Order: sequence, then C-alpha cells, then structure tokens
Amino acid sequence: MTQAIRPLVFNGERLTMIDQTRLPQELVYLDLHTVEEVWEAIRSLRVRGAPAIAMAASFGYALAAAVAPVEGSLEALVAHMQGVREYLETSRPTAVNLFWAMARMERVLREETTRLMTPQGLHHAARSAPSTSAVSPALAPMQAMTHAIVERLRAEAVLIQSEDERSCRGIGENLLTLMTDGMGVLTHCNTGTLATSQYGTALAGFYLAHERGWKIRVFADETRPILQGSRLTAWELQQAGIDVTLICDNMAATVMAQGKVQAVVVGADRIAANGDTANKIGTHGLAVLARHFGVPFYVAAPIATLDPATATGAAIHIEERAAQEVTHVAGERVAPEGVSVYNPAFDVTPHELITAIVTEQGVCWPDFAVAIGHLAG
Amino acid sequence: MTQAIRPLVFNGERLTMIDQTRLPQELVYLDLHTVEEVWEAIRSLRVRGAPAIAMAASFGYALAAAVAPVEGSLEALVAHMQGVREYLETSRPTAVNLFWAMARMERVLREETTRLMTPQGLHHAARSAPSTSAVSPALAPMQAMTHAIVERLRAEAVLIQSEDERSCRGIGENLLTLMTDGMGVLTHCNTGTLATSQYGTALAGFYLAHERGWKIRVFADETRPILQGSRLTAWELQQAGIDVTLICDNMAATVMAQGKVQAVVVGADRIAANGDTANKIGTHGLAVLARHFGVPFYVAAPIATLDPATATGAAIHIEERAAQEVTHVAGERVAPEGVSVYNPAFDVTPHELITAIVTEQGVCWPDFAVAIGHLAG
Repeated sequence: MTQAIRPLVFNGERLTMIDQTRLPQELVYLDLHTVEEVWEAIRSLRVRGAPAIAMAASFGYALAAAVAPVEGSLEALVAHMQGVREYLETSRPTAVNLFWAMARMERVLREETTRLMTPQGLHHAARSAPSTSAVSPALAPMQAMTHAIVERLRAEAVLIQSEDERSCRGIGENLLTLMTDGMGVLTHCNTGTLATSQYGTALAGFYLAHERGWKIRVFADETRPILQGSRLTAWELQQAGIDVTLICDNMAATVMAQGKVQAVVVGADRIAANGDTANKIGTHGLAVLARHFGVPFYVAAPIATLDPATATGAAIHIEERAAQEVTHVAGERVAPEGVSVYNPAFDVTPHELITAIVTEQGVCWPDFAVAIGHLAG
Repeated sequence: MTQAIRPLVFNGERLTMIDQTRLPQELVYLDLHTVEEVWEAIRSLRVRGAPAIAMAASFGYALAAAVAPVEGSLEALVAHMQGVREYLETSRPTAVNLFWAMARMERVLREETTRLMTPQGLHHAARSAPSTSAVSPALAPMQAMTHAIVERLRAEAVLIQSEDERSCRGIGENLLTLMTDGMGVLTHCNTGTLATSQYGTALAGFYLAHERGWKIRVFADETRPILQGSRLTAWELQQAGIDVTLICDNMAATVMAQGKVQAVVVGADRIAANGDTANKIGTHGLAVLARHFGVPFYVAAPIATLDPATATGAAIHIEERAAQEVTHVAGERVAPEGVSVYNPAFDVTPHELITAIVTEQGVCWPDFAVAIGHLAG
C-alpha cells in the first residue's frame, strides 16, 4: 500500500479532513461544511503543517463565499469576504502560508469581481449560472455573478492544492537523486503527507523511493515537546508500508554512530538568503551530529520557503512557546510545579552544516547564497 | 535552603525513603520495616540510581538479619542470609552496585561469624547482648551472637552510606575546581541526591557551588524516555533553591549555541580503561555538541565506576529496553500501535570527546588510560 491517506479532500460543498488531534490512536475523518468549522479545525490543530493550513483555509474561504449574503452589489460581497479572510487569519496567526493563501484568494476574488463588472463578464456569468435558480428577476444577474465568483474561488483553492502536490512531488524527485536503494535515513518532526496535500516535503523522497520499490529504513525522531515524529510521521509512514523505527531525539547520535543512517532529511520553516535554515527545535543539533559522523544533511523545502529578504539566520526571530508543552505530556504533569522552562519552538541551522537544500526546482549546493539568489530571484 | 532532602534514612529498625515514583507531583516518605518492603521499593523504582539501590539493599539486608530465625547455629544464619542476598539481587538484576553491596554485606557476615566462633568472640558477644532478653538458657549464647552480627551488619550498611556521602562530596569538591561563579551548566538524567545518599555525582559540584554562595544556572535535559531530568533533577535542584531551567533533550544545541552553557557535566555507569564512558542515552550526542560549540564536557563519577578490565567502550553491552517506554508517556499512548521502536538505555561516549573525568580522588585529564590505570590500579 502506498500513500493511501488523503488528509484534505474538497468536493466544492464539503472539506473532508483527517482529525490529526486523534492520531495516532484513531483515524477519524471530519466533514466540514462551513468556514466556522474550518476555522475551528485549524485553531484546534486538527490540521497543522504550513501548507496544509493554507489549503484548509483556502477551502474554507470558498465555502464561505458560497453562502455569502448577496446584498445587491459585488462591493458588498468583497467587503463581506474581507471579513472572512480576516476571520480565517485569526485561526493561526503565526502561519505565514495562511496569510499568503488568504491574500491569493482575495486577489482572485477582486480580479473576478472586476472582470464581471464588464458587460462581457456579466453576459458570461448569466449564461453559466444554474438555469434552475428561482430568484427574483432583479437579483438574477447578481446571483449569476456570485455563482461565477464562487466557482472561480473553488477552482483557485483546488489549484493551490494541486500546486502543492506538484511541488512536493518535485521535491521528492530531486531528493531521490541523492538517495539509494537500501539506505537508512533519519528525519525530524513531521514534513509529510499530513503537513501538506500529498507526499510532503522531507518525506516526499521516502514515499517516491517506496513507490519505486526501494527498501529504505527511516528513523523518525519523536520530536519533543509536541511529538509530531511519533504521533504523525511514524503513523503516516507506517500507513504507507514504509519501514519506520521510532527513536527519542537523544538517540540520533547512537544510530548515526552505529552506521544505520546514510542521510538526514529535514524540512524548513524559513531559509535565509545565505542558506541558514529555521526549522523545528532539534534540527540544529542533528546537523551538528551529522557533520560529526560524516552523514549528509539535507533540507527539503519548496521555493516558497526561501526568504531572500532575510540575509542570515541571525535575523530570524525564534518563537518561545508555553512551558506546559514541556512540563505536561498527554495532559499529565511530568515536571515539578513552578519549574523554569525554556521552550524555543524552532532553531536556526547555520548553512555551513547543510549539505544541500532540495527544492522542487532542483538541488542547491553551496554556495547557497548564489543558488538561492537564482531560485528566488 | 540547601540540600534539605534525604532520600534514605536508616535508624536500625526502619528505612525511611522518598518514594521517587511519586515525584515530582508529591513528596512522600515511606517507612520500610522488612526486607520484603525494601525489595518491592527497589523493584518498583521507588528508589533508583546505582548507589541508592546498593544502599537500600544493604539496609534491607540488615533488617532481614534482625529477624532471621535463630535455629541454633550460626551456619544456619549464614545459609538463611545467603537466601536474603539472592532475593535482594533479584530486585534489580542489572544493577552492578547492588551485587557489589550484597557481596560486601555477606563478606562482613562471614567474617563476623568466624570471629564469633572463637571463645573470645563468644565472650564479647555475651557481654554486649541486651541484658533484658528473656531467652531460654540454651539459646542465650546464640541470641547474643546474632545480636552482635546484626549490629555489625547495621554498622556496615551505615558505613556504605557514609562512604558514598564522602565520595560524592569529594567529587563535588573536585568539580568545583573546574567551575566559576556565575556560570551556566548543562546536565543530563539524574545523578544527584536522589540517586545517591547526598550531593550526588554530577550534581555534587552544583550543590557545593550553591553552598558557597555562587550563582550558577543549571539547564536540565528532561532525558527521554524516562524523564529523570524533569521528574527528578529539576525537582531536587528546585528543592535546594538552585536556579534550574528544564529543556527538552533536543534543545541542548540551542542553549550551547546561545552561549548559555560553559560546561556540560554528566554522570557515568561504567568507564572503560581508555576513558570511553557508558552513560544514559543522549550523553554521546551531548558530547558531540559540546565539542562543536567549544564547551568543556566533564564526566563525574566515583572511582568504583572505573572498569579497567574493559579495554574500550566497544566491549560495553548496550541494554535495549521496552518499546513502551517510548510509545507511552504517563500511561498514555503517544505513538501508533505496532510501530517499531529502538530504545537503547545507554550510549558510549568516546574518550576523545571527554574533557576530564572527575572522581573523588581527583580530576583525570587525557591520556585517560594512564590516569585510570593509576586510580583503579
């Protein structure tokens, strides 16, 4: 079995998603029909991973457009949808991709609105509107235009998803050029199917290797404090029938020292102009270990992650998260009351420790500044 | 407040111990009166840490001797106590110190028995026996001898504890020569008061620095999978009023990169003739990070940990423990059902990565083979 899970499926009226908060205990699919349900799903981490959040919000935006009150003017619709965008942006205010996707959906809405306001546009909308719609004659053109806009937004959300799929597949194919049948690989956090639409970023190479019939052995760091590695990565690779072994983060040195790992592959949250890479806490340490043990260290990420406006990793702000993530596991306290905790969510891996950065458009080798300049320029 | 907790207190009739399974939620002291209660406490990890287990078992051995059936001969007592020793050894069969302590207690029992079997010994025992003892005339000498033996075993168990205290203090004083007021230190697992009688090994330097009024800042790795760092180290340092910050294991690189740590201090389970050191899983990775970031890496351990019979770390067998330790936290499943897990309990840090080995008899610098030969020879 390969790649059977589909975390986000949209049919125009309904968004079906895996409730990731129930994993790995249960595989539960949620049917969401309203933007409020989508907002709640993002807010409650039922869907997570930057690309997946962006896609879910885009589908939610399209769902909201379909039921937007038609008040006689497209301007009113645009104003209403601006509120929807702002509402969805509050679901996960730190997710950059969410803002990118909302801006894109809003741009499409405005373009489509402008287009429809021309006589040709109105004529086209009227012809393509549902013939059975029982609306008052005065509203009929408005209904037709709204219908056209909703269709356009649905199509755009689907396009965002298919672009993500294509981008993940491209990353995977480029990762494959660095992999061999029979190898051991180590990964951190979750950068797989659950975080994207399909294949993932760092995991895309593993899925494509598996599709090709290669035997690979994946070591998945559990990734404290949130345990995305044990809860999500181990689960989705297991679902796909890939040989995965779960380890605690502090066991990575041991599997490297034992020669079990021929590459480390991780994702990225942001890559500065010089190649310095912000990613889940623990990545920097893994890169140091990989260098020490002579294991290649690959960062896999879409072009969209490249941030040429940020010169080096020193300019990347590291978010600190709540102490409770460290002091409690599965709701149980495992540390003394009142203890001080340092809980940085991310770290920055200096570019010198990165062997290559793998994007959907190719593999970047040092000097990264040059390659990133070309790709993102 | 400094060093207020006393994990093991023996008054001859009763062993009072902290129930470490209740930490850090509750500080519960248990009063144990029988060897069976002591066995259960070791078995159930109410007491852990190699020296602490050895001490608890020694006290349990003395408690058993006090109620051993007197069957008319010292040979019968010796045979009975051999059973007690074997019974206690089943409480934690992998704990080397436990076997060492039981062998020591049995040797004392045999020496005392042999001594009492001389006429002088019997005379001495009769004079020191409790004058109020209402025993039959035939048994009186036997009772007197048993009493003398029990007293000798109680004294030996107390001696084992006071030797441990002295050894820990010595390690701490030698660690202090490598420390400075105001420094940041990072430690792993629990090698403190709770694992020993007082001060601990790696933590001894921190306690003595604190007694001296130095301000130090300790970063405690939580130490997956068993979380000794969060449950025990953070707790006992907090109790002592030492500035301690809890981090996940994978955050160590970040605090080192940020310059927050001027030394890493860890304990040891076994140190080979060349200085290769077996210790809690994660230690090897920390040593690699410390080397990368230019932070001194110190191993603190009593002379008893040196094992000159083991040439190098390659000869040290690494115990693998149950998958459930990784897949479950606080009784809750956090990983998918049936996932493969690799859970080595220890790793071996190559001697090249160790800056110094700190014992109660002094600080060993490379070449460790020479220093270890002198100390253990």
